[in-house]
Amino acid sequence: MGSEKTQPARGMRDFLPADVRKREYVIGVVKEVYERFGFEPLETPAVENIETLLGKYGEEGNQLIFKILKRGVHESTGEADLALRYDLTVPLARVVAEYRDKLPKFFKRYQIQPVWRADRPARGRFREFYQCDVDVLGSRSMVVEAEIIAAAGEALMKLGFDDFTIRLNHRQALTGILTAAGVPLEIHDAALVGLDKLDKIGRDKVQTELTERGIANAPANTLLDFFADLASLDDAAQIAIEESHEAQQLALNSAILGRLVEFVGSDEIGARGIDELQSILQLCAANGSASRIRIDPGLARGLSYYTGAIIEIHVKDLAGSLGGGGRYDGLVGMFLGRDVPACGFSLGLERIIVVMAERGMFPPALLSAPADLMVTIWNEDTIEDSVVLASELRRESLRVDLYPEADKLGKQFKHASARGIPFVVILGDEERARGEVALKDMRSGDQKSVKRENIASEVRQLLAES
Amino acid sequence: MGSEKTQPARGMRDFLPADVRKREYVIGVVKEVYERFGFEPLETPAVENIETLLGKYGEEGNQLIFKILKRGVHESTGEADLALRYDLTVPLARVVAEYRDKLPKFFKRYQIQPVWRADRPARGRFREFYQCDVDVLGSRSMVVEAEIIAAAGEALMKLGFDDFTIRLNHRQALTGILTAAGVPLEIHDAALVGLDKLDKIGRDKVQTELTERGIANAPANTLLDFFADLASLDDAAQIAIEESHEAQQLALNSAILGRLVEFVGSDEIGARGIDELQSILQLCAANGSASRIRIDPGLARGLSYYTGAIIEIHVKDLAGSLGGGGRYDGLVGMFLGRDVPACGFSLGLERIIVVMAERGMFPPALLSAPADLMVTIWNEDTIEDSVVLASELRRESLRVDLYPEADKLGKQFKHASARGIPFVVILGDEERARGEVALKDMRSGDQKSVKRENIASEVRQLLAES
Repeated sequence: MGSEKTQPARGMRDFLPADVRKREYVIGVVKEVYERFGFEPLETPAVENIETLLGKYGEEGNQLIFKILKRGVHESTGEADLALRYDLTVPLARVVAEYRDKLPKFFKRYQIQPVWRADRPARGRFREFYQCDVDVLGSRSMVVEAEIIAAAGEALMKLGFDDFTIRLNHRQALTGILTAAGVPLEIHDAALVGLDKLDKIGRDKVQTELTERGIANAPANTLLDFFADLASLDDAAQIAIEESHEAQQLALNSAILGRLVEFVGSDEIGARGIDELQSILQLCAANGSASRIRIDPGLARGLSYYTGAIIEIHVKDLAGSLGGGGRYDGLVGMFLGRDVPACGFSLGLERIIVVMAERGMFPPALLSAPADLMVTIWNEDTIEDSVVLASELRRESLRVDLYPEADKLGKQFKHASARGIPFVVILGDEERARGEVALKDMRSGDQKSVKRENIASEVRQLLAES
Repeated sequence: MGSEKTQPARGMRDFLPADVRKREYVIGVVKEVYERFGFEPLETPAVENIETLLGKYGEEGNQLIFKILKRGVHESTGEADLALRYDLTVPLARVVAEYRDKLPKFFKRYQIQPVWRADRPARGRFREFYQCDVDVLGSRSMVVEAEIIAAAGEALMKLGFDDFTIRLNHRQALTGILTAAGVPLEIHDAALVGLDKLDKIGRDKVQTELTERGIANAPANTLLDFFADLASLDDAAQIAIEESHEAQQLALNSAILGRLVEFVGSDEIGARGIDELQSILQLCAANGSASRIRIDPGLARGLSYYTGAIIEIHVKDLAGSLGGGGRYDGLVGMFLGRDVPACGFSLGLERIIVVMAERGMFPPALLSAPADLMVTIWNEDTIEDSVVLASELRRESLRVDLYPEADKLGKQFKHASARGIPFVVILGDEERARGEVALKDMRSGDQKSVKRENIASEVRQLLAES
């Protein structure tokens, strides 16, 4: 008895009522915005066949997939045939392949569900966490990128964020940059892994890493000079942007694109990527999200399945991103046998909540009481009367707690106070004889007699006033 | 390419948008009712330490738990250290033990989350399914049972069910019946397993099974005679109840309780159980749920952790139950080291949805379009204008789809029709020159010119009229 561990499993969390209300608030806002953009809800199982997931997330991803033992006699062999959902994108690709005849030509779905990764837990990094994804399947038009950027941005704005940056890059622009610098195509991926760390470890260490990864000195220097040049452009503009002129943000993007065009030169793939970046910027100007976008030619993101735009949203007070996404025209083909163009974005619920909590962004109404009022029990003989009254008030749509035992009134009041319930109803003998009850305001301590049939309207009025 | 399986894993389901909307509707109604009863939301992780779950659900339950491989180098040993949530009650007991200082004395929580069981999939039986639980911890008062019965019943009524029966029994009444029949205490459990099948396999086969389980002929006959007597009482009343007189339902419960008192006689444990049944009935009369209750002295339910009331809700057109629950005063003690009284009820979301779908109980509004209107694209040169318009209309809180490509208009209309979107906006050159757009009603085919600034109000009005 009692020797069992009671903490949740490592990296997992219990959410007590106040936590759940915050999570549901954020999810509700995100859903409402995504619905406004014409996205429809999808849900997939937490458990997938293990082959569905293996080989989709790179070597490191494979390691982090939670694997489930085959059941029955097979359990002893240690064979795993199922696995826990690792993200919401691969299941979406499977769904699009499976139900292609039932889905519209352009399938716009949102999906807000947990995923599981056997990662080393750390501050803000959990083994179970929610993703809020939007994806559009079926179109290569840059309108899709612009819609997704606007939807994610609008969701953050509705939550009260007004200082985020949407970093935008393009897989083919990256290819163009590397080619222009003289990095051979077959070691582009190795070069990207190194470059991706520029913000974190600085030029010198990246240079060493590039050498280790087989990139010669000349192309490595050309690359790092180019990014240093972009950074200085950025720094110069930063001062101006602090004054929050949207026009200057847009001018900075133009300047960066200009350098990109210059650097990439005649490389066809690179030029196509830059063209698409320009189209996306133009369409985002039309939907009002362009002023939040920063073209970031160094942005690579880990996932290898991106084929076009790469997007990440950042705020200054969070080390990681609030979300990320991009275009992945090849993933559905792994299931369907023919490519279906696709582009999506995933907001990280846990990170949004961390920042909102630190900044005090949750609306005070979320901290409201678990009930509008509590009905007390006067004594053992009148329990039924309290039960009747609680039922009547619930029928009036009030949220009513009913104290379950004929304890001393003081003890009952204490329970209501501890739960933050603002009103308490007392069915004293005298009041009951007159068809009344005593209504006590737990915040002021005031108490008054109220006709039984008027309690609901009285409480509603007092709640509205407070 | 394309060789991958695309179905969900065995016994698991994908939910396309129309399915998700139905599920969210049911969950929303259940939550609203539970909140009205003063219950607060709780969420626990999908993954628990394996020891938390093992040994809590009996031998059969242990077999059905999905077990997760220990990660890293341990994967090859086949050792499992984690497992998927099997129900919402054991995690609740763990939570109450872990956060006892943070939770109110009487903790009333609801929890609506999926659980996983490695059961053999069958019609209506899945390996991932949602439970909607309410539980009250901290009180032995029968007010708790009455509240839980009323809350579950109210949730079903709000969903449109008006024909369900709440079967009610008591663990100690069962003990009293078996003792009175002369079954030795140490084989009570074996006898219950046999008795539980009376409805399904009939008296003769149960008699054989009881003999096999070591129950002597005399007590077995006494038992089966008693239940046959109750069944005849039931059949006699059934005719009267078809006329739906609540009073007759209550009279039947009185008659059954009378026979129970008579049969159990002076057995102390049995008498206590019957007393509690009577208290619960009385309190349910006060909250308006008594007329749905049927005292069912044969109801046992599989789970061994029940210590008091046992509850199950049935409708005639479903073989299993819509939900079940009861009192389990010992479970929290397995984690905490001291007992905490507890009572709860779990509604099965999947079964509710099956019956509602078969009966056509979902409100038609749920089948509504994924968007209020779709903005079309006139030609490549005016894409940005369409993007601007879609943004404007979303800012007016309309749900707006934006066709992503400059396809022929007919193709764009077809897409809107296929998705059931009622209105389409066309930004033709002539209309644009006049600051207008064409608004097409996809249901009637009617089309008219509307001032750009009036589209939102126009669409809202047309939607309200239809």
